[in-house]
Amino acid sequence: MTTVEQEIYEPLNIETAIELSKNLQLFDHDDHLTSEEIGDGNLNLVFRVKNEHSGKSVIIKQALPYAKVVGSSWPLTLDRARIESESLKRTYQLVPKFTPKVYFSNTNLAVTVMDDLSDFTILRKGLIAGNIYPNLAKDIGHFLAHTLFFNSDFGLNQQEKKVQSSRFINPELCKITEDLVFTDPFYDHGTNNIDEDLKPFVSTMLWEDQSLKLEVATLKKAFLTKGETLVHGDLHTGSIFVREEDTVVIDPEFAFYGPMGFDIGAFIANIILNYLSQQVHLRNQFQRQEYQQYLLNIIDESWNAFSEEFTSLWNQYPQDVFMNIDGYLEQTLQEIFKDTIGFAGCKVIRRMIGLAGVEDVECISNQADRNKVKKAALTLGKKLIVERSQIATINELVKVVSEHA
Amino acid sequence: MTTVEQEIYEPLNIETAIELSKNLQLFDHDDHLTSEEIGDGNLNLVFRVKNEHSGKSVIIKQALPYAKVVGSSWPLTLDRARIESESLKRTYQLVPKFTPKVYFSNTNLAVTVMDDLSDFTILRKGLIAGNIYPNLAKDIGHFLAHTLFFNSDFGLNQQEKKVQSSRFINPELCKITEDLVFTDPFYDHGTNNIDEDLKPFVSTMLWEDQSLKLEVATLKKAFLTKGETLVHGDLHTGSIFVREEDTVVIDPEFAFYGPMGFDIGAFIANIILNYLSQQVHLRNQFQRQEYQQYLLNIIDESWNAFSEEFTSLWNQYPQDVFMNIDGYLEQTLQEIFKDTIGFAGCKVIRRMIGLAGVEDVECISNQADRNKVKKAALTLGKKLIVERSQIATINELVKVVSEHA
Repeated sequence: MTTVEQEIYEPLNIETAIELSKNLQLFDHDDHLTSEEIGDGNLNLVFRVKNEHSGKSVIIKQALPYAKVVGSSWPLTLDRARIESESLKRTYQLVPKFTPKVYFSNTNLAVTVMDDLSDFTILRKGLIAGNIYPNLAKDIGHFLAHTLFFNSDFGLNQQEKKVQSSRFINPELCKITEDLVFTDPFYDHGTNNIDEDLKPFVSTMLWEDQSLKLEVATLKKAFLTKGETLVHGDLHTGSIFVREEDTVVIDPEFAFYGPMGFDIGAFIANIILNYLSQQVHLRNQFQRQEYQQYLLNIIDESWNAFSEEFTSLWNQYPQDVFMNIDGYLEQTLQEIFKDTIGFAGCKVIRRMIGLAGVEDVECISNQADRNKVKKAALTLGKKLIVERSQIATINELVKVVSEHA
Repeated sequence: MTTVEQEIYEPLNIETAIELSKNLQLFDHDDHLTSEEIGDGNLNLVFRVKNEHSGKSVIIKQALPYAKVVGSSWPLTLDRARIESESLKRTYQLVPKFTPKVYFSNTNLAVTVMDDLSDFTILRKGLIAGNIYPNLAKDIGHFLAHTLFFNSDFGLNQQEKKVQSSRFINPELCKITEDLVFTDPFYDHGTNNIDEDLKPFVSTMLWEDQSLKLEVATLKKAFLTKGETLVHGDLHTGSIFVREEDTVVIDPEFAFYGPMGFDIGAFIANIILNYLSQQVHLRNQFQRQEYQQYLLNIIDESWNAFSEEFTSLWNQYPQDVFMNIDGYLEQTLQEIFKDTIGFAGCKVIRRMIGLAGVEDVECISNQADRNKVKKAALTLGKKLIVERSQIATINELVKVVSEHA
């Protein structure tokens, strides 16, 4: 008989975070460590534990048993910490260059200990500041191709894929997306956050448009039922850390088996929102045109990098005998592209009127300017949803986006 | 501390089956019971334990840890017994009239104890004998509507659906379908079972047709990724027990979260195969026409009963706010119908040349007659796959089927 001591969940503090790091032998016992809590406190505690002498540091992330949103708080499963750490470990197998290394995780404590990326910037802030990241598009395309392919029936043994999918059943966090991305913004719902001035526009543009709602219903159903691959589930520009030449994707707590296009669409949507916001941020016309062109190139290049790498993996590591049939790859990419555009449209809309805005747009202090950007985004988001079957190539998508600046 | 005695798997025999029934208090301790093994022994042991005096009896089904197929045997998970009993219990909640009641199940023993249906006939045998079951189509339509709707995101809380889906991850039995229905018949594969005379026809009709294979690849992908609802997974006419006016669906060991159209397609495919076989079985033209018309009516009526009942459930028990959007129900039914036709086509083909034939056709002793039926079935099966988007209504489907007699 073995006696198993089961750890009881308790939120860490600055001291116990240091203690845990030492117990895990990530530092020597007599190292002098500092610890600070650097999370935003809405969903998780995030500690940086550091040996100031050697400069070595780690991040300890611990899920909180609730989510704080706009003043209120609701209970939220700690299981998301397990999902996050399992997703990080799986992703590290596939694309270590773009993933923080996990040193320790514990389901009972809802804790993940991982690489500190303190010399990285959150991509969203970098883009708002107008910075250029020369490898970003290529890196994200590579990340998407490898994670989406090797977790799918195309690149993973089809029986292992089923077993793996059972570890990523994520009802509570999927529900957040189902409600806040695919439902509430399309109704006059209490969770929305809309300037009074915008309401009539939103009402006509979204809430009264039954044909739009039918398309959103179709996309929501795909989110609910299309278990193609292990998606990150929340791949906006706040989930991407960048340095001049490096890209790391973090925070996969929304991970689940969903449609391939969902992650690509989330990324593109957030580039689009930055693109539209630069209409206000960059007053100098030359600078603006140049930076907006850079953002359009990110959309174009990330898709092309994804589809080229996906094609290469498809040809090199086929798990299904049908994968050498003429036209199957092209049909698959076309379907992913169509889903990508539709999901991007939903993501754009939800960020303009839903519970969670994006700093790119919300930081525009002039209300008229801000609402002008929001109207452009809502118009574009709707177009992406409704016309996703007509937009056949990434060039056409870029053209449609550029017409909405 | 509790000590849990874990039962160790051991195949039952006639004596231990009686013992188990008494231990479960399904009979009195001093009842005189008889026991016989009535399974076909390929996958499961099936015991009927009976009190000859009172007439009361139960069925004890126990999974074997292997499958015997065409002389060889391969290991097969006992977990399918858990899946079967959980599926039966869930189905009994929804449609008790059409489901055997489970009295006991045990995962370690891989045992399910349930209603004895000894006064029922396997539908396949009843149809081969040319019997008429007036309620069959309506019953199956009702069964399909209730099970497919209430296990889907349309009729079940969308978070509960995710949790439920985790209990029906069924890699090994899904692989049987992936290989034997969606792959091997479309290649010159060792598991196929083809008369030499038919080979050139099959080669031209299936193996050399790249555009057919692209469509099959698309359907296989739907089987692999479209987690719409808890399907039975093997709803052929051998999984349906009938009496004059009663219908009971058994053997859901292939149950998993898959596409709505899969069960409907399996049922229709097997009606089609009986329909085509009657071309030989019923030599009297008048009798043949009458019975074949009855079979066509089953196809027509079962779909109509399904879609009417599904519509009624959709309107009464919507789980999603989008379900009242104009056109969403129609679009959903159209998609289910298209999948149904495609899956029916695959099922028809696999039964003609794959590992497992159907008695309806295999019992035709004259080789020329048998191969004529097989050719008609292969031609029709292919048409259903390739033209599933063009066949828009159940009447059109019936017409297409009738043209292949």
